[in-house]
Amino acid sequence: MTSVGSDDTGLLAPGWAGSPAASATGDAAFLQSLLDAEAALTRAQAALGLAPAEAATAVTEAADAARFDVRSLAERARGGGNPVIPLVADLTKAVGAEYGPYVHRGATSQDIMDTAMMLVAVRTLDLILADLDRTERALARLAAEHRDTAMPGRTLTQHAVPTTFGLKAAGWRSLVLDARDRIKAVRDSLPAQLAGAAGTLAAFAVYGARDTQALTAAYAHELGLRSPLLPWHTLRTPIADLAGCLAFAAGALGKIATDVLVLGRTEIAEVAEGSGGGSSAMPHKANPVRSTLIAAAARRAPQLAATLYGSLVAEDERPAGAWHAEWEPLRDLLRLVGGAARDAADLSEGLRVHTDAMREHLDLTHGLIVSERLSAELAPLLGRTRAKALLTDLAGRTYAEGRPLAELLAEEPELKDIEKDINKNIGQDIDLDELTDPARYTGSAGVLTDRALERR
Amino acid sequence: MTSVGSDDTGLLAPGWAGSPAASATGDAAFLQSLLDAEAALTRAQAALGLAPAEAATAVTEAADAARFDVRSLAERARGGGNPVIPLVADLTKAVGAEYGPYVHRGATSQDIMDTAMMLVAVRTLDLILADLDRTERALARLAAEHRDTAMPGRTLTQHAVPTTFGLKAAGWRSLVLDARDRIKAVRDSLPAQLAGAAGTLAAFAVYGARDTQALTAAYAHELGLRSPLLPWHTLRTPIADLAGCLAFAAGALGKIATDVLVLGRTEIAEVAEGSGGGSSAMPHKANPVRSTLIAAAARRAPQLAATLYGSLVAEDERPAGAWHAEWEPLRDLLRLVGGAARDAADLSEGLRVHTDAMREHLDLTHGLIVSERLSAELAPLLGRTRAKALLTDLAGRTYAEGRPLAELLAEEPELKDIEKDINKNIGQDIDLDELTDPARYTGSAGVLTDRALERR
Amino acid sequence: MTSVGSDDTGLLAPGWAGSPAASATGDAAFLQSLLDAEAALTRAQAALGLAPAEAATAVTEAADAARFDVRSLAERARGGGNPVIPLVADLTKAVGAEYGPYVHRGATSQDIMDTAMMLVAVRTLDLILADLDRTERALARLAAEHRDTAMPGRTLTQHAVPTTFGLKAAGWRSLVLDARDRIKAVRDSLPAQLAGAAGTLAAFAVYGARDTQALTAAYAHELGLRSPLLPWHTLRTPIADLAGCLAFAAGALGKIATDVLVLGRTEIAEVAEGSGGGSSAMPHKANPVRSTLIAAAARRAPQLAATLYGSLVAEDERPAGAWHAEWEPLRDLLRLVGGAARDAADLSEGLRVHTDAMREHLDLTHGLIVSERLSAELAPLLGRTRAKALLTDLAGRTYAEGRPLAELLAEEPELKDIEKDINKNIGQDIDLDELTDPARYTGSAGVLTDRALERR
Amino acid sequence: MTSVGSDDTGLLAPGWAGSPAASATGDAAFLQSLLDAEAALTRAQAALGLAPAEAATAVTEAADAARFDVRSLAERARGGGNPVIPLVADLTKAVGAEYGPYVHRGATSQDIMDTAMMLVAVRTLDLILADLDRTERALARLAAEHRDTAMPGRTLTQHAVPTTFGLKAAGWRSLVLDARDRIKAVRDSLPAQLAGAAGTLAAFAVYGARDTQALTAAYAHELGLRSPLLPWHTLRTPIADLAGCLAFAAGALGKIATDVLVLGRTEIAEVAEGSGGGSSAMPHKANPVRSTLIAAAARRAPQLAATLYGSLVAEDERPAGAWHAEWEPLRDLLRLVGGAARDAADLSEGLRVHTDAMREHLDLTHGLIVSERLSAELAPLLGRTRAKALLTDLAGRTYAEGRPLAELLAEEPELKDIEKDINKNIGQDIDLDELTDPARYTGSAGVLTDRALERR
Repeated sequence: MTSVGSDDTGLLAPGWAGSPAASATGDAAFLQSLLDAEAALTRAQAALGLAPAEAATAVTEAADAARFDVRSLAERARGGGNPVIPLVADLTKAVGAEYGPYVHRGATSQDIMDTAMMLVAVRTLDLILADLDRTERALARLAAEHRDTAMPGRTLTQHAVPTTFGLKAAGWRSLVLDARDRIKAVRDSLPAQLAGAAGTLAAFAVYGARDTQALTAAYAHELGLRSPLLPWHTLRTPIADLAGCLAFAAGALGKIATDVLVLGRTEIAEVAEGSGGGSSAMPHKANPVRSTLIAAAARRAPQLAATLYGSLVAEDERPAGAWHAEWEPLRDLLRLVGGAARDAADLSEGLRVHTDAMREHLDLTHGLIVSERLSAELAPLLGRTRAKALLTDLAGRTYAEGRPLAELLAEEPELKDIEKDINKNIGQDIDLDELTDPARYTGSAGVLTDRALERR
Repeated sequence: MTSVGSDDTGLLAPGWAGSPAASATGDAAFLQSLLDAEAALTRAQAALGLAPAEAATAVTEAADAARFDVRSLAERARGGGNPVIPLVADLTKAVGAEYGPYVHRGATSQDIMDTAMMLVAVRTLDLILADLDRTERALARLAAEHRDTAMPGRTLTQHAVPTTFGLKAAGWRSLVLDARDRIKAVRDSLPAQLAGAAGTLAAFAVYGARDTQALTAAYAHELGLRSPLLPWHTLRTPIADLAGCLAFAAGALGKIATDVLVLGRTEIAEVAEGSGGGSSAMPHKANPVRSTLIAAAARRAPQLAATLYGSLVAEDERPAGAWHAEWEPLRDLLRLVGGAARDAADLSEGLRVHTDAMREHLDLTHGLIVSERLSAELAPLLGRTRAKALLTDLAGRTYAEGRPLAELLAEEPELKDIEKDINKNIGQDIDLDELTDPARYTGSAGVLTDRALERR
Repeated sequence: MTSVGSDDTGLLAPGWAGSPAASATGDAAFLQSLLDAEAALTRAQAALGLAPAEAATAVTEAADAARFDVRSLAERARGGGNPVIPLVADLTKAVGAEYGPYVHRGATSQDIMDTAMMLVAVRTLDLILADLDRTERALARLAAEHRDTAMPGRTLTQHAVPTTFGLKAAGWRSLVLDARDRIKAVRDSLPAQLAGAAGTLAAFAVYGARDTQALTAAYAHELGLRSPLLPWHTLRTPIADLAGCLAFAAGALGKIATDVLVLGRTEIAEVAEGSGGGSSAMPHKANPVRSTLIAAAARRAPQLAATLYGSLVAEDERPAGAWHAEWEPLRDLLRLVGGAARDAADLSEGLRVHTDAMREHLDLTHGLIVSERLSAELAPLLGRTRAKALLTDLAGRTYAEGRPLAELLAEEPELKDIEKDINKNIGQDIDLDELTDPARYTGSAGVLTDRALERR
Repeated sequence: MTSVGSDDTGLLAPGWAGSPAASATGDAAFLQSLLDAEAALTRAQAALGLAPAEAATAVTEAADAARFDVRSLAERARGGGNPVIPLVADLTKAVGAEYGPYVHRGATSQDIMDTAMMLVAVRTLDLILADLDRTERALARLAAEHRDTAMPGRTLTQHAVPTTFGLKAAGWRSLVLDARDRIKAVRDSLPAQLAGAAGTLAAFAVYGARDTQALTAAYAHELGLRSPLLPWHTLRTPIADLAGCLAFAAGALGKIATDVLVLGRTEIAEVAEGSGGGSSAMPHKANPVRSTLIAAAARRAPQLAATLYGSLVAEDERPAGAWHAEWEPLRDLLRLVGGAARDAADLSEGLRVHTDAMREHLDLTHGLIVSERLSAELAPLLGRTRAKALLTDLAGRTYAEGRPLAELLAEEPELKDIEKDINKNIGQDIDLDELTDPARYTGSAGVLTDRALERR
């Protein structure tokens, strides 16, 4: 097969190439959505008696993307600034002399473009939602399974206090559910667009429509979209809502990816992707490719969303630029999140968790990972100041002497008697070893995990 | 009064300086919110029997921003990377030896910072909501008053077909309502943060809390915030939600501003700000300053939101940078939108509408503004192709000869008889003059306006 | 012709579809650039005696994009996260058993990707530079021709004082020259990349290279790129430099477009695009499509550049995401600016200037457009305060009475005698009519235009 | 000390609060710069005989920020949309009746604002340059000292092949030098602004200037700024250039910070900040605060730059919003980079390098870190396919059996004889242990470091 011209197949986009979202957002899918909108318009007019039923049939039959030359449309779009103008010409011709006049009747290019964009969005969001569901189920399993798997909690890159992998996975899942909820709400709100040259639907009345609201509703119904309260040619709430939920989803998945990237580092290796990507030169390498591609998407999404939020500032009844600036960024966002959701599902389902490494790392600071606990336990016994001074001193010696904190504590004369008091304080009989056991200092992690998993 | 050091009072920010949002987001307000969070924590602990009631009283009394040196805190914040660390030291000292140990007990800096941010956000969003209410009421009045005021609809900067100023104002209002709804939903969802060093609430248990969920709930209740399902140190949904609703609001107001800027141009002058800004050098100038400042805010908000969406990618249990990158952009967004909402309210309430200019401009194209209508009316009579050719020809002559389209149409022999047919077609008796009257070609603008105004 | 799969041909991109930049940046062009890099590597190794000359010939011959399946490569890129891995497999196979082992020898995927990106960038920048040259020449002609064409200077949308169209065009041109200079400097600095798995060129030494600097130089020479001082796998200066110059160019052209959009509004009509875009529904419309598409590009470029600047933060020897996040945004920027430069050239060459409208608009404020001048002239005569008060009063009456300022001034008793003084002051004999003639108050516009046109 | 109103002292900005850049960019510094511009204007006019020398003296003396109420100016700025309007009123009053009329004579607000912005920029860039110099010197020392300190090269988070810390530090330094060069070039190009109401300098002529170019030059000379070729009220090249060089600098420093954050992780600990930030609750923690704050700045800078690039699209002779949207983002950028440069200097000077940890980690993959080398060495001996299969097999066994690769290799029968051949191949006598020694596989790292350090 040869490659010609300037067609893009996703060569620079391993994050989404070949994904369902790629097919749902390609030029062919857009072309079909444009045609779907045109066909729905004629059908809606026919349903209201504004066009013959045969015209609706003729347009619907002609509205098959495979019969149009997308490249030619793309190039001819330059003349008027959008692809609907040449498409209407081609479609009218394809429909033929008799019913051609019913093509696009009363509509403006933006009606068709905006509607097509919503169709593409709905279809892609459905794919994304399916992958988010897959992701959250996998994460729920991980959270439940590792409810009590202690691991280092890390803040500003340093071991802080212990946490659990269950809580981490539950947190990831809660972000996925937040993304799902936001996307679902937006998906169900997306409206069709039908308002004519300057948003008054005036031409439809000339063509006989007495109740333009009914026409809009019929059109929206044909397409499975919402009927808008007002024409939204320059009231771009749907676009901004899409920007927001998609940027959120990219960031939510990006959080998971960044954690996997950190935890999968050669030195940490607490998790690993199910199947790492290879390297031609280095046979041993297993790269965290899924996380990497999600992370890349998360780096791009906010700026794409920014462009879309910027397009809210759309002057007049149709802006000279703001509208045109939406098309590619919105598609890019849909694709990026579509690809990232696919990768997140694969990542979550395949993630390998190395509990031994987690356990081992809890001891990496020789017990200092529970210094917060000791600080809290000792403060009432020694006084806050003395407790802090003692622990700071011991922390230094722990590193210098390479000995466990518990051991050093045990040698402290002033603590000998106190051990007894601590036990009384915490209401059970444990010794210093237990007090400094990181696995016993995971706080409410388990309870939080349980609670988070109750969310559906 | 002298100005010293690096304090900012808003000299570079005429958009928000001196506004209620400015006061609600200044360093002093933040400092007070930080202190409010600390005091609520001790009170919540006291309520659960984890601290003496006297400690709660002592901390609450000491937690008065006026007693702290905000500049010193700002500079000492550099050591640990956030202002809570020095604040806890100062507050502990202010509370005194007896109850000082109850300050910040079990909490981490991020608990206090995040909670303070939410307090500041809630307070500022309430101010914004009030100004949006003011704005939507003014716009509702304008829309109702000008329900039938015809004006040129403009697309890609050119006159397209007529619309009404009522529909335009109704559209502006619908964006304001969209902004209000989104802000309100986010405002009511904002959670307190209380989770300790790595999000497990472990230290609170050491200090005696058996039910950390109850502690979090009591703390949130003290502050009027929601109790979170999970600690959100690195699950930044609230921040992203704020970014989204604020970027939306900025863009929504920006749409109004950009329309006012266009319509208020010297050559157009269909609207004018109530009180334009002056110029020292040019006595005649009345600048659209409110719109200008709103437009400026709308140019900045998307990128600020992008930074916040980017901070969703927050590694580990507390990230090294993503969290710190949120503080100023979130405050900037709150301020910008706060200032823009104030300006939008003033702008809407004071807007002067020059209906005579609108009417006059409808004739600027000598009737061509209704060419869509003629095209639609004539197509069934002359055939689509002939109709278009005729109108294109007449459009050229209209400009060249400077004569009204109606006049030229009247001279067309093939139209003489057709006029009769048109009248039959549209079911009423009008002549060409009426057919080319822009004010009679506003389509569903009135109905749409009515419908939009029903929304509350 | 049928449209299948997810290929993009530019349907959503009337700004760049069909442009030379589109061809130069399409997947096929990228694929060829990747192959060019591979071939150059083998040739460079052969030149240094590290590979047989026959291998260089074999790889060069096989490195023909038309022989590879770009879609398959795109999809297989997902495994390892970049398209070079499958490409090396396919190229090796294509070269055959004997010389296949010389393909990609010692290199890492990033060497090839980065180099290909630079090749694509250089080729596209050359196209952009040619269109910028075309643009600046057209603007120089406009500036010279209209050196003394007075028109209203507008600030904050309102007439301020007169300026000239020549100065405006000269200003546009100076931005184009600034863009050209910045792009040219970056274009000439773009380096090849050749550094192996972690940037040490270690494998090349194993394969026999004694002087890796010589190898890099030979490779860069083959490609017409600069030989880098250091491997730049994670020192992304070239990418950031591209981001900067392209964002600048988009903004510079966006300034021109926004001015044309304003000046071409139906009510202003001081300029018009050579051939406006049509509308299917409205025969009279001539949309400023070139400006619209440039404006759309200018809205997107800053955020694309932001993503690229963000990718400077690239951890380790190859980052997990930052690098991958560069590919599409950089290509998007190249395309957008490529398309915008094409449109800017067409726009500038075809721009129609309506000097009569400019002249007419100078009188739109009844002479107030020269109030600054009067303010300055009268201040020394009447005192600053009295002068300002008088002019403010007259400005109000000018609008209220619809009479020229000159006329009102002439009636002012205190000015009768002063006219004489003014004449003395300005050293020539003019009357009030002349003093209030906007065309005589263009200051240094002519001189500035001359000076600006001297720049090459 | 009490905190009142909405003044900001940097409480949310530990990255720049208290820094020299903070003082250089605060409202007081801006106010002084505005006054400096006004004073320079009168002095320049006096120098050209357009104003009495006494006026120049009077304005210069009055132009002392300490005598003005910055808060009042900030609030009054709202009326006209910028602070210069009230400032001119206050300054005129302060200068007194006699010379007051010479204040701001012929200028427009933007002349003063833009010039002040350039003054602030120059002063802050000088501070940044000094800190970048400090940083590069420290990094040069680190690079030289660790020229041959081998450490793991990491790609996509995984050990790839060895590199050296010297090369890494040299790479960091090269980015700092790139930033320095870009900032220096921009700093030296920044122009004064002086063009009057609409950029024609017309009023200056009325006030007697025969050669406005000379006036602009004198004014620029007074301020130490460049005299512009054209007024740049809406030709915003200087702003875009600042955006570019500052975004670059933030990203360059961000690269260093992200590497330090990775290398300083508890599990890696190859480097540590000189003095880590503490934690109130966890006595053992030493947080990488300098890196964290730099990283936070790097996350924000690109979007701030995007807003500034966006402001290139500035319509007319003064835009309604684009200009106003520049002020705070440009100051934010200056501050963020100012703070980050301070932190980078401290970080570089204090960085502790743990060469033992680096050495230890080279063995973490049991020798697989040199698999690329073995792949290259064995391919000619065993054939590429067999070599790769063998190494993949051994890689698996290395992990499974926890034995060094060298040991496993030594057991391979087919390699026994080959060892000899390898030695012949590489021209020296080494055994398998040496062949698999990571410290002997750093390629050209040393040479590259040397070369990079030659750059000044």
